[in-house]
Amino acid sequence: MNSRSLLGKIKNKEVTIGIVGLGYVGLPLAVTFASTGIDVIGFEKSEVKVEKVNNCQNYIADVDENELQKCVSSGMLSATLDFTNIKKCDAIIICVPTPLDKFKKPNMEFIEDSCRSVGQNIKVDSFICLESTTYPTTTEDFILPILEKESGLKGESDFWLAFSPERVDPGNIEFKTRNTPKVMGAMSLEGQEIGIALYSLAISEVYPVSSPRVAEMVKILENTYRLVNISLINELALLSHRMHINIWEVIDAAATKPYGFQPFYPGPGIGGHCIPLDPFYLEHIAKGFNFDLTMISTAGQIDNLMPSRMMVRINFALNKQKKALNGSKILFLGVAYKSDIADERESPALKIMDEVIRKGGIVSYHDPYISSIKTQKDHSLDSVILTDAVLVNADCIVITTKHSSFNYENILLQAKLIVDLRNAYNFKNDKIFKL
Amino acid sequence: MNSRSLLGKIKNKEVTIGIVGLGYVGLPLAVTFASTGIDVIGFEKSEVKVEKVNNCQNYIADVDENELQKCVSSGMLSATLDFTNIKKCDAIIICVPTPLDKFKKPNMEFIEDSCRSVGQNIKVDSFICLESTTYPTTTEDFILPILEKESGLKGESDFWLAFSPERVDPGNIEFKTRNTPKVMGAMSLEGQEIGIALYSLAISEVYPVSSPRVAEMVKILENTYRLVNISLINELALLSHRMHINIWEVIDAAATKPYGFQPFYPGPGIGGHCIPLDPFYLEHIAKGFNFDLTMISTAGQIDNLMPSRMMVRINFALNKQKKALNGSKILFLGVAYKSDIADERESPALKIMDEVIRKGGIVSYHDPYISSIKTQKDHSLDSVILTDAVLVNADCIVITTKHSSFNYENILLQAKLIVDLRNAYNFKNDKIFKL
Repeated sequence: MNSRSLLGKIKNKEVTIGIVGLGYVGLPLAVTFASTGIDVIGFEKSEVKVEKVNNCQNYIADVDENELQKCVSSGMLSATLDFTNIKKCDAIIICVPTPLDKFKKPNMEFIEDSCRSVGQNIKVDSFICLESTTYPTTTEDFILPILEKESGLKGESDFWLAFSPERVDPGNIEFKTRNTPKVMGAMSLEGQEIGIALYSLAISEVYPVSSPRVAEMVKILENTYRLVNISLINELALLSHRMHINIWEVIDAAATKPYGFQPFYPGPGIGGHCIPLDPFYLEHIAKGFNFDLTMISTAGQIDNLMPSRMMVRINFALNKQKKALNGSKILFLGVAYKSDIADERESPALKIMDEVIRKGGIVSYHDPYISSIKTQKDHSLDSVILTDAVLVNADCIVITTKHSSFNYENILLQAKLIVDLRNAYNFKNDKIFKL
Repeated sequence: MNSRSLLGKIKNKEVTIGIVGLGYVGLPLAVTFASTGIDVIGFEKSEVKVEKVNNCQNYIADVDENELQKCVSSGMLSATLDFTNIKKCDAIIICVPTPLDKFKKPNMEFIEDSCRSVGQNIKVDSFICLESTTYPTTTEDFILPILEKESGLKGESDFWLAFSPERVDPGNIEFKTRNTPKVMGAMSLEGQEIGIALYSLAISEVYPVSSPRVAEMVKILENTYRLVNISLINELALLSHRMHINIWEVIDAAATKPYGFQPFYPGPGIGGHCIPLDPFYLEHIAKGFNFDLTMISTAGQIDNLMPSRMMVRINFALNKQKKALNGSKILFLGVAYKSDIADERESPALKIMDEVIRKGGIVSYHDPYISSIKTQKDHSLDSVILTDAVLVNADCIVITTKHSSFNYENILLQAKLIVDLRNAYNFKNDKIFKL
């Protein structure tokens, strides 16, 4: 095996890149490569997504529709259901989800399926890189054996293998795929050289580390840091509430410290596809090393309790007005897991809704970005149109997402009662109950 | 009571400020005020400190000796043991320590004593401000009653009371008392106006908050954030060690993320007068509100276990060379709780020494800044002179503080075995065992 040939192709932009999985991570990456004139083939199991891409229809908010159109119409980007086309690719990047099952164990089936398909179809001298967040050791101990078995080839002799964590932050306007530094750990120095050359075609800074497991740990550390700090501030918010201390005022004041502090803000719980999941991959593998990660499990416990605590907060806000939760009309404003995005994955709003329904609350919601939802307990709801009548009619309005498009002044004017879980109202008012 | 008179004195720099406690916080603050031409009287119980100040002898590393000399010789700063001189002061700032007792309960005796002395001697229309870190509600529920009882005066009628947390970071070259923003919460709007005017005489930015308890919580949040993140990274370091992952490499790579991450580095445990203490004031008061702070207690547990874990690490490093800890000569390099400072308060090095001594290790240490120590278990040691013979003679050298003055190259050359708890050696070597 000789890396010179592949490096030459990369240098001359004659490389063909296969991207497996065209979701939040894969589609932006595919467009980022294709728009620099690299030939990209996207592999998907979803017929709908393949058709959309090939018809220049964007479905990921962070992707620029015009850029997608240019890539497809210029022939630089196409999508396919047919994994035998992997044969045409010199480099394959896997961007499939790694969910947790309901016992918080990593569900590896998407990674496993992708690796089988890739293994069955790769040609000699390919470079393969995983971007899916997963527990450290996955690339070396889980993926490599599958690829070798399916292909009959030998890693670092017949193909190169690496891991490079995605750092997609949905809704981030400043940092996109192109200008977010990319960490990468390969299994050999040759693989590292290829990986750096490949990603540098499209990404401004590639930061190599010594092994895939280090790169895997990097991503987990980034999001464990966030889980732990959000859980800490949520716990301190609950105490501060009892002590008549406004935690948001505390945080803003602490943020005046010019070193050694980074502010996190409380809310009804963590959401999205990263922070609620990534730390628990590590917890899973740690158990295999007879190690309990007490900070992660404590943070997880705090977060697990947030939905029922928020339901109790709603209950006692109503109680002040001598109303029971059972039979009251509760209107949730915002179900996205953070402001101004159309993503309700793992959103705490849905969990609070389930808790409120369980206690007899009559639940409705409005979200300008999300027209219908299904909760964990399989309640299906459609977003209501936000009229004054809808606002007036609710016994309690719960601010679960601070979308900037909401007319907070009018909401307050019409509301009987507001439970503000996002500090949308930065002042005191008899109608408003805070987290 | 009329605040105009005091505000006028402040404006005209005719105010006399009393500073109670001339330690790490009080002396820099006294010098900062006095050097701008404000009359400052320092109150101390230590005769030694009073004499030193009055003889222009500096004893706090962060204070500039020349500046101290100028303040004292110009008559702007004097120190006294006589608390009846409080009568001469228009404003009194209390900067005494708040230790924890050995059951991790706040020891309020220094604050209590100071407040008694202040209360017995204040004149009408004084402004009193506490800077000592303590649990939220201290100013309102603990200090105010003492001041009122001892003085026979009424808070916010006869005197003003406020809390403003110190933010001293020993050894910080960039941020000193003068240019670190100062949070302050007073008990009335008049008190707030006075506090802002007073501190603005010497400090570049004063950030008012709505109450003393908010200001008290600010300081606790800042240091709880640090405790939790250091404990998290220490726990992840222990796991990474088992998984053959270099945690320092992981952290440096994660730090390339341009948003949402702040790096913390592992070590043998937390030290100093803030991070090991402040969060536990909050834990203490939280129990009074029937609230358990699970993140703080988990972080505390990790930190409590670090010294014995580090002793075990030393033990098994020796074990690789077929030596028992019992009877081995262990040389500790650095006992300060962080690099390049002369402060061993709560330093993990001392706790590890106790653990090693308990198992029969023969302990010595060298620290260029600290000539003698006494451990928690009352072992007294003097710093040895760091000759090659001393290095060669040790069965194990433990790097507990990464002082920049150490000759790491020569230490490695002479050493039989090194346990590097601070990543002083950023490479692999058979002699070196890492945290």
